[in-house]
Amino acid sequence: MTTGRLEAFSDGVFAIAITLLVLEFGISEDTEDLGAALLHIWPSYLAYVTTFLTIGVIWVNHHQLFDLVARVDRPLLFFNTLLLMVVAFLPFPTRLVAQFLQGGDEQTAALAYGCTFIVLAVAFQLVWRWMSAGRLIREDVPQSMLDGINRSFNPGLPLYLGVTALVFVSPLASIILFLALAVFYALPGSFLVRRR
Amino acid sequence: MTTGRLEAFSDGVFAIAITLLVLEFGISEDTEDLGAALLHIWPSYLAYVTTFLTIGVIWVNHHQLFDLVARVDRPLLFFNTLLLMVVAFLPFPTRLVAQFLQGGDEQTAALAYGCTFIVLAVAFQLVWRWMSAGRLIREDVPQSMLDGINRSFNPGLPLYLGVTALVFVSPLASIILFLALAVFYALPGSFLVRRR
Amino acid sequence: MTTGRLEAFSDGVFAIAITLLVLEFGISEDTEDLGAALLHIWPSYLAYVTTFLTIGVIWVNHHQLFDLVARVDRPLLFFNTLLLMVVAFLPFPTRLVAQFLQGGDEQTAALAYGCTFIVLAVAFQLVWRWMSAGRLIREDVPQSMLDGINRSFNPGLPLYLGVTALVFVSPLASIILFLALAVFYALPGSFLVRRR
Amino acid sequence: MTTGRLEAFSDGVFAIAITLLVLEFGISEDTEDLGAALLHIWPSYLAYVTTFLTIGVIWVNHHQLFDLVARVDRPLLFFNTLLLMVVAFLPFPTRLVAQFLQGGDEQTAALAYGCTFIVLAVAFQLVWRWMSAGRLIREDVPQSMLDGINRSFNPGLPLYLGVTALVFVSPLASIILFLALAVFYALPGSFLVRRR
Repeated sequence: MTTGRLEAFSDGVFAIAITLLVLEFGISEDTEDLGAALLHIWPSYLAYVTTFLTIGVIWVNHHQLFDLVARVDRPLLFFNTLLLMVVAFLPFPTRLVAQFLQGGDEQTAALAYGCTFIVLAVAFQLVWRWMSAGRLIREDVPQSMLDGINRSFNPGLPLYLGVTALVFVSPLASIILFLALAVFYALPGSFLVRRR
Repeated sequence: MTTGRLEAFSDGVFAIAITLLVLEFGISEDTEDLGAALLHIWPSYLAYVTTFLTIGVIWVNHHQLFDLVARVDRPLLFFNTLLLMVVAFLPFPTRLVAQFLQGGDEQTAALAYGCTFIVLAVAFQLVWRWMSAGRLIREDVPQSMLDGINRSFNPGLPLYLGVTALVFVSPLASIILFLALAVFYALPGSFLVRRR
Repeated sequence: MTTGRLEAFSDGVFAIAITLLVLEFGISEDTEDLGAALLHIWPSYLAYVTTFLTIGVIWVNHHQLFDLVARVDRPLLFFNTLLLMVVAFLPFPTRLVAQFLQGGDEQTAALAYGCTFIVLAVAFQLVWRWMSAGRLIREDVPQSMLDGINRSFNPGLPLYLGVTALVFVSPLASIILFLALAVFYALPGSFLVRRR
Repeated sequence: MTTGRLEAFSDGVFAIAITLLVLEFGISEDTEDLGAALLHIWPSYLAYVTTFLTIGVIWVNHHQLFDLVARVDRPLLFFNTLLLMVVAFLPFPTRLVAQFLQGGDEQTAALAYGCTFIVLAVAFQLVWRWMSAGRLIREDVPQSMLDGINRSFNPGLPLYLGVTALVFVSPLASIILFLALAVFYALPGSFLVRRR
């Protein structure tokens, strides 16, 4: 299994998961006022943009990590499959936020969303830790770069835990912060840019 | 991030979005007269063909622009993700047109469709402006070609704004004009052909 | 636009259309006897296998034609997009057959299915005629091979017209014959095998 | 038809089928207690993880077999299409398990799931038997490796038959064993790892 193959397959899953998000949108045929209905589903837009950007960021980071890899072993394949399993699952919690952010169960929906992001961060760390601890990294990659990536990973999980905990104060604020995190990681300035 | 990688991922999103359009079609099981029902959903066919051809044209133009690019930087990645976010969203306004073009809310549906196309044109311009203003273009691309592409971009946004404004006169005419624009851009004669 | 790019995009559409077919299957949650329900939806299985194999055959033939092509021009791109538009549409008539083959509207459903196949055959011929009439074929391809392919195309459209006309006698027989045609084209013995 | 093309197309189908699995998840808008509803759909999670890992394992094994292949002939193309047809069908029995594992029809649902896995194993064997019996294998592949793969295939079908038969004792235990099999095959220790 070459890294090229693994990346192409992972790319496929990323691209499909990101494009399936649109299926969360739906307006019932017997809507009386379409304009009002389109405004009323604002949580759908928020959830769509947040998850879309997050998967986009994961896709970029996924590539940048696999660029460092010389060979793929069986456990890496397994951890990558776990990661893809969480990515492919994202349309479901996204839809929960879209459906319930305006109802009485907004807290549960935002909690399910946040927990999926936490599991995602853990799966991503597993991929990275195995990659860097095992001898899978290309020999020409300097230790300083690995250290830099390690440091850049440190804030991820605590941040996601914190933003998820925020659902007990404000579910909406929690989702907006997830969006802000995705925008922050997507824009230049993160370590991944400085690398190049 | 090579342009090849970015293009392959974008292609994936284009191909999936274009193929998900078929999910807008549906006939209820308890339809009494299937033949009549199949004729009655003519807005679905119109919306399908219009969006399909439009995505097809965007796909072709996307490649032709990225063929000129020497390297991808972080903001280009970000603007491209915005563009993909709009493309992947298209099945939703397409479905709105299919559902509501025959009802009382035809204007709102066509307006939502047109506005999505306007956002699409803006996102496409952002990608192109960043590409050409930054130093991302290959050195062997002559300035005259860039000028030609710039000129070819000029009518796009005003046209889309105009066709969208038309929904206040006739929503159906507006959709048909979007289809005509896609056919016009898809057929030979546009700048993109003369380039080769 | 290289043929490789065009083929990769077309492959994406084929692969997605073929995989979306499964969405036609569905059993209502309040089914009382799941075993009986699974037998009762036999038209779904028939329609699934028929469309799946047909898209598979089209995919193989599509590649074999594009292997002969030296360059892609704008009209070829346009005709190929038309072909993809029909392929991506196939899940809808497939679902119609699945839904209505046991009801009173079986004839209309099978007719819609057959007509889609006819349009598909026409689109495929447009692609091939343009390819072979224009100067898009590689110079090392012998005329005898082009003649062979031309001959192999001859029976296609009349066959599809005939099998579609059969819906007025027996809709079920018509679908079964479409399946038989797909199996016949998929199995060795067609011109495409002898070529190698 | 090169093996690269065939593998890319097959990869596409694997990636799409694996990502469509998420569409089985759904919570009705008028759910009163979302937290309880999310726990109540535990069969959906179980079915999702089981099918996802199984497709992941099939994807890995599919590549490892096609790495040995020197050329693709028409029957191999046909058997591979049959295999893809079963893989693309998996979202349906997965959804049946998700819907019915808690109801009175759990046995039928688990039986449909198990039978699909049996057909999958048969299709995979057809691909492999044709590949190895015909002269499609690269000449530099030693006979000992082919013998090893043959031996590794032996337990597959009896195991799947046995686990499927278990549905008459406990449908839930049957699904859990399918999950255990997928994890077992995914983790290092199988023949596929020792090969490298």
